[in-house]
Amino acid sequence: LDAQKARKFRETYLAYHVYEQAQVFIELDRDERTRLYRYLTPEEVGDMFNAIEEEPEKVVAFFDEMTPTYAAGVINEMYSDNVVDILAYANKEHLNNYLRLLPAKTAAEIRKLLHYEDKTAGSIMSTEFVAISQELNVEQAMQEIKVAAKDAETIYYVYVINDEQRLVGILTLRDMLRNENHIMVKDIMNRQVMSVKVEDDQEDVARTIRDYNFLAIPVTDFANHMIGIINVDDIIDVIDEESAEDYSGLAAVDVEQPDESPWRAAFKRMPWLITLLLLGMSTTSLISHYESLVSQASILAVFMSSITGTAGNAGTQSLATAVRRLAFDDDEKSLLRQLFGELITGVILGLVTGTVIMIIVGIWKHNFVLGFVIGFAMMCAIIVANLAGSFIPMFMDKIGVDPAVASGPFISTLSDLTSVLIYFNIARLFLNFFVGQ
Amino acid sequence: LDAQKARKFRETYLAYHVYEQAQVFIELDRDERTRLYRYLTPEEVGDMFNAIEEEPEKVVAFFDEMTPTYAAGVINEMYSDNVVDILAYANKEHLNNYLRLLPAKTAAEIRKLLHYEDKTAGSIMSTEFVAISQELNVEQAMQEIKVAAKDAETIYYVYVINDEQRLVGILTLRDMLRNENHIMVKDIMNRQVMSVKVEDDQEDVARTIRDYNFLAIPVTDFANHMIGIINVDDIIDVIDEESAEDYSGLAAVDVEQPDESPWRAAFKRMPWLITLLLLGMSTTSLISHYESLVSQASILAVFMSSITGTAGNAGTQSLATAVRRLAFDDDEKSLLRQLFGELITGVILGLVTGTVIMIIVGIWKHNFVLGFVIGFAMMCAIIVANLAGSFIPMFMDKIGVDPAVASGPFISTLSDLTSVLIYFNIARLFLNFFVGQ
Repeated sequence: LDAQKARKFRETYLAYHVYEQAQVFIELDRDERTRLYRYLTPEEVGDMFNAIEEEPEKVVAFFDEMTPTYAAGVINEMYSDNVVDILAYANKEHLNNYLRLLPAKTAAEIRKLLHYEDKTAGSIMSTEFVAISQELNVEQAMQEIKVAAKDAETIYYVYVINDEQRLVGILTLRDMLRNENHIMVKDIMNRQVMSVKVEDDQEDVARTIRDYNFLAIPVTDFANHMIGIINVDDIIDVIDEESAEDYSGLAAVDVEQPDESPWRAAFKRMPWLITLLLLGMSTTSLISHYESLVSQASILAVFMSSITGTAGNAGTQSLATAVRRLAFDDDEKSLLRQLFGELITGVILGLVTGTVIMIIVGIWKHNFVLGFVIGFAMMCAIIVANLAGSFIPMFMDKIGVDPAVASGPFISTLSDLTSVLIYFNIARLFLNFFVGQ
Repeated sequence: LDAQKARKFRETYLAYHVYEQAQVFIELDRDERTRLYRYLTPEEVGDMFNAIEEEPEKVVAFFDEMTPTYAAGVINEMYSDNVVDILAYANKEHLNNYLRLLPAKTAAEIRKLLHYEDKTAGSIMSTEFVAISQELNVEQAMQEIKVAAKDAETIYYVYVINDEQRLVGILTLRDMLRNENHIMVKDIMNRQVMSVKVEDDQEDVARTIRDYNFLAIPVTDFANHMIGIINVDDIIDVIDEESAEDYSGLAAVDVEQPDESPWRAAFKRMPWLITLLLLGMSTTSLISHYESLVSQASILAVFMSSITGTAGNAGTQSLATAVRRLAFDDDEKSLLRQLFGELITGVILGLVTGTVIMIIVGIWKHNFVLGFVIGFAMMCAIIVANLAGSFIPMFMDKIGVDPAVASGPFISTLSDLTSVLIYFNIARLFLNFFVGQ
């Protein structure tokens, strides 16, 4: 009876695409998962695990539910890049257990991959690629590819290596199909093969794959030995991750896991809110210094938020532009030239916006001196916020910090401080002229 | 002499990858481009044009520099999805000129593609795919693929159609290589082929390709006839575009072309800044209503920016989370449940943040009634901003507007208004208690 149930379950479950299997799997409870391990082979579970996109901390716990032999079977079937992401979160003892049960070669590969630094090409590459010798002809090469087809993550690109395992060329399956069997690989391969180094930043790899429209790119070590391959689907994950980071930085909230309980959401946003509040207290205490000025001319309080708000918006615009430029442009203009450009932009924005508010205030309050004070203060505040918005991410990039973490609200808070300083000092200068009117 | 120069130029130029050729090409001036057209065949220029990633308005001008016959040759060589993006910007007369010079079938295809709505699957698909009949065996199918390999954008997936051109299955080259020549295609093909409809949103297509790790997906019409294919490299462009849109919305600045002159940058940011300034004037005029209150208690002016700032930050956090959730989650919880979750998050954030500021103000100003007023106002302002930040994008999504255009600064400006209203009303209620102390 159980055998029949198992057969029926296997038939239904395995008919789904692995991504859909994975979607179902992560909704199961522990008992159901245990039963599933009994019904499916480690290979089938391994295929499915390649498609799980949960946090690795969660997935590693699944391994711990299986018998070590079963887990090793699953690990053996998975692509090395996926397995390494997950095993990085395994505890040492479990990890050694699994590795001991794996074929020596696979275990050694995983050990090596575990050592690559996070966010480098090495950390996202897999070792399941097809490499053939340049001394083969097309027919022999096709034979090798047929054998490799079982395990390789992609067989569309065939990498050609020489006797010393160095990468010397690339062929696509298309090239092979369009050539006669007796033609030598080395005569038709493309010798100008693009590759990335194992220590390259994953963002640079993403840029190359995107710009060149590659489906995969080979990874080499310092001596041009081919050691791995990065596929376009891993690059999509990198692009998603990096764009979520940029976006999170601008909003001061981690948006990578948007669907969660209100408690967890509050818990994640709280540190940012409180930090910004405390930073904002410096602005508050600065305003506090000018309290007597405000009590002399309460009209100043009316326009304060308008000035800090507009300068904050200008600063956010220039920040966002700078962060994107740093993320996507290869050939960077000199720091000074960029800052100079942003200065000019700020002056234009400040002049126009300042003039607009000057006219509005002048007409509304019948007080053109007040209008001038507000307009002039807004112009200065915008120029400063604009410069800060572009300088800070560029500076962070120069010292090796990801500029995306320079959050928009952080810039706004900073710009509040300078805006208030500018505003009240200009206002004090002209106080007698506009209060008297 | 000229012939020799041409040969030398061709040799050097064509040795580069098409992406690099394109990078060089866009830097040339008009004279240089004209010379290049003389040296290269339309086919070679067409290959290169596939790799150009400039604005289509710019590229279409290149066609106008060529003789119509040459331009038609270039167009004929390009992939249909790329060519259609560009020709959408051609003037009618030129377009008809080009189409007249193209093979009838290609011209008809381009005409059809030009009619699909922007941002749908139809607008990004190409028609260069490999489709074979299910009645072939593996050997015959391989023969067809070899022929198709010249023009198809990808040959890795082979789509299987029946006599009525309906999509019935899919095979990968890997499947073919692993099966004997005499096996029938219909016996080894995967019948559960995922496809998208021609009118589907490009974001949904991107999500499917990303989740399933596909290299391409077939596009069908209402009757399941296969009419095109969308490749992963086009999907990367979609993901880039959509993430730039989300990011732009949050910063109120278009970041898609970050590298430009200060004048253009100012020109692009100005409308947002001025709009937000004018919207902000409603807050200013509201504050203006409370001017007499401020002149009675100038201390209120001191904490105003702290309350509007913090509520604005909370609103931005909830906005960003909502926008990402709408963009990435398929199974949406009910609107009410999401809003309720955000309400709870807002209450938690408001309670904690309000308590923190209450303690700070109480100790700093030795006035716990004032502290309570500030803390209570901040709590209410945060709850309202949080709700608005999630409600507005969800509402926009429901009425079919892209929620990404709900900019962060827009939410901040809105939340300024409600925060000020809440703050001064609470303050007025307790005025006698904290001013007297």
